[in-house]
Amino acid sequence: MNHHDVSSILQRVRDENPLVHNITNVVVTNFTANGLLAVGASPVMAYAPEEVADMVRISRALVLNIGTLNKDVVSSMVLAGKTANELGIPVIFDPVGAGATPFRTEMAQKIIEEVNVSVIRGNAAEVANVLGEKWEIKGVDGGTHQGSNIELAVTAAQKLNTTVVITGKDDVLTDGTTTYLVSNGHPLLTKVTGTGCLLTSVIGAFAGVEKNLLLAGLSALSFYGIAAEKAFEKAGHLGPGSFQIEFLNQLSLVTSEDIEQLSSYKQV
Amino acid sequence: MNHHDVSSILQRVRDENPLVHNITNVVVTNFTANGLLAVGASPVMAYAPEEVADMVRISRALVLNIGTLNKDVVSSMVLAGKTANELGIPVIFDPVGAGATPFRTEMAQKIIEEVNVSVIRGNAAEVANVLGEKWEIKGVDGGTHQGSNIELAVTAAQKLNTTVVITGKDDVLTDGTTTYLVSNGHPLLTKVTGTGCLLTSVIGAFAGVEKNLLLAGLSALSFYGIAAEKAFEKAGHLGPGSFQIEFLNQLSLVTSEDIEQLSSYKQV
Amino acid sequence: MNHHDVSSILQRVRDENPLVHNITNVVVTNFTANGLLAVGASPVMAYAPEEVADMVRISRALVLNIGTLNKDVVSSMVLAGKTANELGIPVIFDPVGAGATPFRTEMAQKIIEEVNVSVIRGNAAEVANVLGEKWEIKGVDGGTHQGSNIELAVTAAQKLNTTVVITGKDDVLTDGTTTYLVSNGHPLLTKVTGTGCLLTSVIGAFAGVEKNLLLAGLSALSFYGIAAEKAFEKAGHLGPGSFQIEFLNQLSLVTSEDIEQLSSYKQV
Repeated sequence: MNHHDVSSILQRVRDENPLVHNITNVVVTNFTANGLLAVGASPVMAYAPEEVADMVRISRALVLNIGTLNKDVVSSMVLAGKTANELGIPVIFDPVGAGATPFRTEMAQKIIEEVNVSVIRGNAAEVANVLGEKWEIKGVDGGTHQGSNIELAVTAAQKLNTTVVITGKDDVLTDGTTTYLVSNGHPLLTKVTGTGCLLTSVIGAFAGVEKNLLLAGLSALSFYGIAAEKAFEKAGHLGPGSFQIEFLNQLSLVTSEDIEQLSSYKQV
Repeated sequence: MNHHDVSSILQRVRDENPLVHNITNVVVTNFTANGLLAVGASPVMAYAPEEVADMVRISRALVLNIGTLNKDVVSSMVLAGKTANELGIPVIFDPVGAGATPFRTEMAQKIIEEVNVSVIRGNAAEVANVLGEKWEIKGVDGGTHQGSNIELAVTAAQKLNTTVVITGKDDVLTDGTTTYLVSNGHPLLTKVTGTGCLLTSVIGAFAGVEKNLLLAGLSALSFYGIAAEKAFEKAGHLGPGSFQIEFLNQLSLVTSEDIEQLSSYKQV
Repeated sequence: MNHHDVSSILQRVRDENPLVHNITNVVVTNFTANGLLAVGASPVMAYAPEEVADMVRISRALVLNIGTLNKDVVSSMVLAGKTANELGIPVIFDPVGAGATPFRTEMAQKIIEEVNVSVIRGNAAEVANVLGEKWEIKGVDGGTHQGSNIELAVTAAQKLNTTVVITGKDDVLTDGTTTYLVSNGHPLLTKVTGTGCLLTSVIGAFAGVEKNLLLAGLSALSFYGIAAEKAFEKAGHLGPGSFQIEFLNQLSLVTSEDIEQLSSYKQV
């Protein structure tokens, strides 16, 4: 992947200001909207079955997040997802908590079956449960199972015919053929709710301006991780409240030049 | 409008602590509640059809916001709105995203038809779509169409028999006969989600203590814009996260004296 | 109550990282999740009837909060609550706004009747309305009615066979036999939305690691109040926005040693 291409996509997000349609959970709506605004994208949240298809039509990306799902919202997700598929709009799927309850796993698999998902972003346990396979996941952060995270991501990408991002200590990004490890980021992100969900939406913003999903994903992951690193340096010692606010600041302040200098990824 | 009257309403909000009933969207609930508390009002959110009428009865203002609408919540809005009308409680309406989808436009018009709305607060595109007229809106911020924003606001106020606020680079406030332009404010507000929605609720708080809606609106707009200016001065350079927090601080810190000194409006 | 026991529970929360299942209102979801993460617990929000029982099964505490209730969510609360009862998982109930509308009072009483609640946390008016008795409550902060708050709490605990927390200027904690007054805390908490709701969830986290509910409650109240005092010292002069963020910081920074030195409670 051309290093300059990776870093330049951020500026395109800021120039093109893509509208990202989020059908997401009630915990992270505000943080997601503010995060997308900070990045330079334009967020919209719409859930009603009467309007989701119309909202997708004016959007550049659709983000589906099942964090506080119910049957009705899953129906809206499927409707929106099918419309996005017809129009060639990328669909980014965050299977929050898949595996925590049978209902979540079932609904996540329903979405995967009925919608052609462009990117799945989750932790190892979530992705394994979407896949429906018995993976030996001993935690959800993937920190001590990096080898299997790569294997899991590649298997999921191949079986589901999609791009997969598994976040953890390092993040894995793969289309089933080409695989990257991104080591930008900071563990304090796990102390702020919705940082995984917002990353999924940020990937949506990047995929809204760049059709090469590996390139969009690599750029989004590097950018997001660098913002976390800078936020930690500036405010991490103050506590998670200040870190959260500084992270929003950094999502606005990090530049393509920062990505060029500070991104840390490798093909594996 | 008497300059002292404009500035003094803020103190009355803080003395009288009006309860403002919000039926609003899931993105801005927390920010709206914290903003109203900072101003000195008392927020309540209630949506269930079994209780909205009862909640309106103990409130001083009702705010209806369709940001993440569905059919059920619109029914609750209409029920609450009719109760407010019977009791003479002001109803402030924020037609978020009217025009973005046919469903939103239709529901916004349904609310306007079934409820006597006291104030509509939106951007130019939203107000034009509520009006149902083909206005040549080339953007939603009204920045380059100030002439037409005034014309649009006056037409909407006359046709809908209500007070209209169109926010943009300058804010227009009119009852169809008397019209003001308010130039307080800061563009960074557009980088924080829900600042328009919170303004609508703040107008509700001011209308809850002052029956003259032009006076309440002028005071609320000046106050809100000054808080944004002060927040920008203090924290704008840090980024949108810090600006958001400082804006909440300033909603609590700005005084009637500040409004007297810093408000910037004119009758047009 | 052994002073060291009170202070040591915080460290156990951080060591054991209890999963707290919240069925709560749409205003406070984000703040509750971030607050629980800051304390060292693990939050989950799940509402769908198809999954709440399964989510309870993997949780250490269940928090029910009716702040933006509707019939469907109350059904999920009852289902989750009964499952928690079967499994011996503590249920913490926050009857937000009971008494404000008949529907709220009725739903709060329905929950109390159908679920064995371990702890009720509310202000004086809310607890009185759950109890269904005509108490002379002249306000909701209990500040000038401390005598009657104690009497009310004891009566509620005895009649409802539960532990009761009434928050106000001082907080009352009682199981109907043994009663404590906790004087840690700061009035600025009332200027940040959801601080009562988050306290209820924090009590859930503490009850998730300590079966003695008086001990868990006393520890949670002292801890929470100390975090507020420290946040006020550091950021109170800046305004409610900064106070809110610093409060989240302090929920992460306050230690068992701080509780040992700064807790202020007495048996009455």
